[in-house]
Amino acid sequence: MATGAAGGGSDELKLLGAWVSPFVHRVQVALHLKGLTGYEYAEEDLTNKSDLLLASNPVHTKVPVLLHAGKPVCESMLIVQYLDEAFPGSGPALLPADPHDRAVARFWAAYADDQFFASWIKAFVGTTDEERAAATEAAAAALQKMEGAFGECSKGKPFFGGDGPGYVDIALGGFVAWMRAFHAVAGVNLLDAARTPLLAAWADRFAALDAAKEVIPDVDRIAEFAKHGLLPLLQKLHSTKN
Amino acid sequence: MATGAAGGGSDELKLLGAWVSPFVHRVQVALHLKGLTGYEYAEEDLTNKSDLLLASNPVHTKVPVLLHAGKPVCESMLIVQYLDEAFPGSGPALLPADPHDRAVARFWAAYADDQFFASWIKAFVGTTDEERAAATEAAAAALQKMEGAFGECSKGKPFFGGDGPGYVDIALGGFVAWMRAFHAVAGVNLLDAARTPLLAAWADRFAALDAAKEVIPDVDRIAEFAKHGLLPLLQKLHSTKN
Repeated sequence: MATGAAGGGSDELKLLGAWVSPFVHRVQVALHLKGLTGYEYAEEDLTNKSDLLLASNPVHTKVPVLLHAGKPVCESMLIVQYLDEAFPGSGPALLPADPHDRAVARFWAAYADDQFFASWIKAFVGTTDEERAAATEAAAAALQKMEGAFGECSKGKPFFGGDGPGYVDIALGGFVAWMRAFHAVAGVNLLDAARTPLLAAWADRFAALDAAKEVIPDVDRIAEFAKHGLLPLLQKLHSTKN
Repeated sequence: MATGAAGGGSDELKLLGAWVSPFVHRVQVALHLKGLTGYEYAEEDLTNKSDLLLASNPVHTKVPVLLHAGKPVCESMLIVQYLDEAFPGSGPALLPADPHDRAVARFWAAYADDQFFASWIKAFVGTTDEERAAATEAAAAALQKMEGAFGECSKGKPFFGGDGPGYVDIALGGFVAWMRAFHAVAGVNLLDAARTPLLAAWADRFAALDAAKEVIPDVDRIAEFAKHGLLPLLQKLHSTKN
């Protein structure tokens, strides 16, 4: 692996994605931040997955998958770490240099998935109003914990990663457009400036990054999908093996 | 941080643990493999957690926590990565050097938690025979996937990490004594040589390591705890905030 262009070129990189996936957006933002913008992108039909996706991620059969010189890397935040490690000379480091800071960044990135997203998804798939309301409240509570983490990670600077966006920014930032779409569709603002002022301001900064603007779809388009496309897709996925 | 003894000494290391926790065992095995055996160990009463634990891991209030020069690192596999990064000169590297191999190791270590353990725990806490049987079967199915991963990671050598134990060995190895205790108590052998011959042989090799023998309690003691102490503890933990 890591032959030829591995020092910085991106011509051997191929991303299997889905335009609406926040996990794919994370990888696209990371690739942009690392200056690895020349990758090939292949849109997957999640109801009819490609042989390449099934072969590249046989365990989870999920996007994103990054193929580098043909070798697959799966799971969005593992891909982000991989980009840092396989392309150390490209763009800024996404994880901090200090070992303790790295552990803290990994902790909060995992928290964004295991606590925030794991709660929030139930606000979409919950079957009763009570279940959806409880899920939304749990997601908001997780964000309040991340509001506290912002100071610890950013040390007074604009991003979790400090002066520029890094690992935790990518982990939580992948959800910003979806949080805004959720506001539009469900009427709940998870990035409420009254409740989480630091995160609300951070989300504006994140969304204004070139790396975000150029790869993450418009909130309106995501909201439209959330309204009409998401539940049928989840039902279809639930009823098939892949 | 990482001052003074950070180049290799371990006199500034303190581990908050619980003798029966497989997650604590992971960290203890990793410390042993890195030659960092001079750390201070503090046993936590999980029904009456110390102020130090609550202050060091306020988000999850769980063991293990490793304090290094007073700064806490939480979550077992993040601690293992931290040890590799903060003590690069001590003992063998636990993660592989190659970026793709590192991504694969992180993938399977996460799988051990998110698929294997997350299924298996329901075999302990499930409330019906059917639920417990389904959980046991799901855990066994996850182990079969890891049987397939063993070849990919070990490349024909004795451990997931190659010639010596590494990141995935620690992730799954932390559960070996508990799997044996589960066999003794529940009569189900998750390390059945007929079903997962590579893992069955690997588990014997792992359990025979000095790093495992010297830190992981006897299977009989864990089995005794599983029989009489586990459910009361889980019920107590469930009924309290911490």
